[in-house]
Amino acid sequence: MLSIVNPNEENHPLNNPKYKFVIEKENYIYKTIMSKDKVQIFDTTLRDGEQVPGCKLNTEQKLVIARRLDELGVDVIEAGFPISSPGDFTSVSEISKIVKNATVCGLTRAVKKDIEVAAQALTHAKRPRIHTGIGTSDSHIKYKFNATKEEIIERAVAAVSYAKTFVEDVEFYAEDAGRTDNEFLARVCEAVIKAGATVLNIPDTTGYCLPEEYGAKMKYLKENVHGIDNAILSCHCHNDLGLATANSIAGVINGARQIECTINGIGERAGNTSLEEVVMILRQHPDLHLDTGVNSKLLYDTSRMVSDSMCMPVQPNKAIVGDNAFAHSSGIHQDGVIKNRETYEIIDPKDVGVTESAIVLTARSGRAALAYRAKNVGYELTKLQLDEVYKQFLNFADNKKEVNDDDIHLIVKASKIQNLAIA
Amino acid sequence: MLSIVNPNEENHPLNNPKYKFVIEKENYIYKTIMSKDKVQIFDTTLRDGEQVPGCKLNTEQKLVIARRLDELGVDVIEAGFPISSPGDFTSVSEISKIVKNATVCGLTRAVKKDIEVAAQALTHAKRPRIHTGIGTSDSHIKYKFNATKEEIIERAVAAVSYAKTFVEDVEFYAEDAGRTDNEFLARVCEAVIKAGATVLNIPDTTGYCLPEEYGAKMKYLKENVHGIDNAILSCHCHNDLGLATANSIAGVINGARQIECTINGIGERAGNTSLEEVVMILRQHPDLHLDTGVNSKLLYDTSRMVSDSMCMPVQPNKAIVGDNAFAHSSGIHQDGVIKNRETYEIIDPKDVGVTESAIVLTARSGRAALAYRAKNVGYELTKLQLDEVYKQFLNFADNKKEVNDDDIHLIVKASKIQNLAIA
Repeated sequence: MLSIVNPNEENHPLNNPKYKFVIEKENYIYKTIMSKDKVQIFDTTLRDGEQVPGCKLNTEQKLVIARRLDELGVDVIEAGFPISSPGDFTSVSEISKIVKNATVCGLTRAVKKDIEVAAQALTHAKRPRIHTGIGTSDSHIKYKFNATKEEIIERAVAAVSYAKTFVEDVEFYAEDAGRTDNEFLARVCEAVIKAGATVLNIPDTTGYCLPEEYGAKMKYLKENVHGIDNAILSCHCHNDLGLATANSIAGVINGARQIECTINGIGERAGNTSLEEVVMILRQHPDLHLDTGVNSKLLYDTSRMVSDSMCMPVQPNKAIVGDNAFAHSSGIHQDGVIKNRETYEIIDPKDVGVTESAIVLTARSGRAALAYRAKNVGYELTKLQLDEVYKQFLNFADNKKEVNDDDIHLIVKASKIQNLAIA
Repeated sequence: MLSIVNPNEENHPLNNPKYKFVIEKENYIYKTIMSKDKVQIFDTTLRDGEQVPGCKLNTEQKLVIARRLDELGVDVIEAGFPISSPGDFTSVSEISKIVKNATVCGLTRAVKKDIEVAAQALTHAKRPRIHTGIGTSDSHIKYKFNATKEEIIERAVAAVSYAKTFVEDVEFYAEDAGRTDNEFLARVCEAVIKAGATVLNIPDTTGYCLPEEYGAKMKYLKENVHGIDNAILSCHCHNDLGLATANSIAGVINGARQIECTINGIGERAGNTSLEEVVMILRQHPDLHLDTGVNSKLLYDTSRMVSDSMCMPVQPNKAIVGDNAFAHSSGIHQDGVIKNRETYEIIDPKDVGVTESAIVLTARSGRAALAYRAKNVGYELTKLQLDEVYKQFLNFADNKKEVNDDDIHLIVKASKIQNLAIA
């Protein structure tokens, strides 16, 4: 649908960044379908993800993962915390040399030496970013820094200004922003934007926020920070209460345009936001008019690569990338899926790189699933024959977790069916 | 704080169910602190949880878990789907005999035979509930039932009415309610409440909803279904997009008073809502004025019991019950936690039955963590000594995933420190 309007009118869509414009014969014509806003994906698998008991990687392993993240299409790769150890410095430095498309980012505290070392590690990056910051909640100011609010702002500004002497792209994190009062947080943001921060990371460090609350925080900053349009607001959520994904989505709905996340949601304690979850939520909900540049077809394989190299198992019921994410075993569900995939599946498994949804046979499976799997191994059963085989199947399945193809042959044989048609 | 007001005034708090009243000398006195609303926990570990490839349990194992769920304080135990197999019938029947406090529930389709068999399996339950229902979304009506909307309502009402001839407590599920339009869903709810349904289960069967959307659905039903106060609205969410927990919380914020969930979030595909997550969210957010009757101190142990008997691993970064949920390994975090636990931990690990938060030593750990752990194994290091030992530690840790107590002795020895004080 096309509309033609007077560009001098108030609220003219020309002033609405959500519309795409084409100029045709002196008239402005705009599409009623809004263009999608891009949400940047900031992957911190190699920094916040690796910062986990048992997940440590060597430089060689990190290079393999960094190459894959670049291929996956993430916008930023946080490669490490250069001052934290000699090994981490080397990793950030080597990753900077091989990444072709993504920005490469190094973490620092709001400390001169940290920033210098990070800048040095990022020397070879095509698109370097320094990520610096300081705690802003009362708890952090009092117990961690034993400082005043004014001192915190001074240190934040000093860190950003110093980082700007090395690189153009400086991200600032307000640690424990989730528990920082909005008014003070807005003052900190305003000050660091003035000092040149290009991205503002608003971490829910302890994973305490509810989605409404985290979304409202982003909205508050978007509406109350002078100069906010000169920077990108970024969501960095932790999963202590199982809400990291929902909080990140609430963040971008309310104006943030970057999500910090990790493959498989790994990270300290209960982990970070899962990259695969936020990417697929935005893809499955086109009504949000938000999308990422991630090639979702590489998600499953990337998940396995990270899980294997960190020896960090992904539970079978993990969303998107778990082994059971597309497996159906109950009779009611199997019946529905066999009739029409979309009855129970919202994502086509192929879209995330999984070859096909499995119809798993257990004691909870129904006739439709049994007929489907029997057909797969060669038996075309009539309704009456299926009744017979199903009885055998139930007795068999009550004593076994999962019925496989060999078992199906045994069950069909034990059913002693006459006139069996082979599919 | 107490207030005294005229009970004839409009908006008098007497009409607000959130206040608790005490009558004192002819005056109404109410507490400004609202009483907490109880959210019922409906555990479906043994039904929707067990309905999973590889998770099948025998009756003996189910009895052990059912006993524990009763002790944990859940309000309802969905024990199985009696008509689905002879083994499941026996399990529901045996569980009914041993559960002391919780309601025991059996699943059925909207089919007479299912309901009869479920009623029979529940004969010995102190508080029996039949859970019956039918698909209500366009996709389910068309592809699964090949029926009209009117026929669906008829079948729903018939099922509830028939179930009521066996038990007083009948829960109705509107399968795929997440994709059912609200107007039709409200009509279905109204019809089944009239037929005697005590609980209305609104499942997001495919795990598609966003929290705002799911919350709005509950609000719509609360406001538009005639007779809604005669029934409890129930959240049943799936985790395909990682949003089951957030959706359930949005549901209870908007008027639902039951959450259907499983231990460790197990369940078909990406699983169901995690019991431990919703329980701890409500406990950590007293401002929501909602709580459950669950004894959180049993959560960790129950998680392990279910994981072990189903051979279903819980990933280390699982919220609340994962092995790393309370483990700190980065220097910044460890330093904060050692100074004051609440800097990085919102939940006291003891509250969920975990003995203590672990300070894990890796290459990402800082001096404070090393000093803390060194002290635990007997070394009281001065600042200068710590600098020496820390250098040794970093070289050592870069080549090892995790540094244990034995390693600390080796590192201290290698540092060749003079005048070492033993703690």
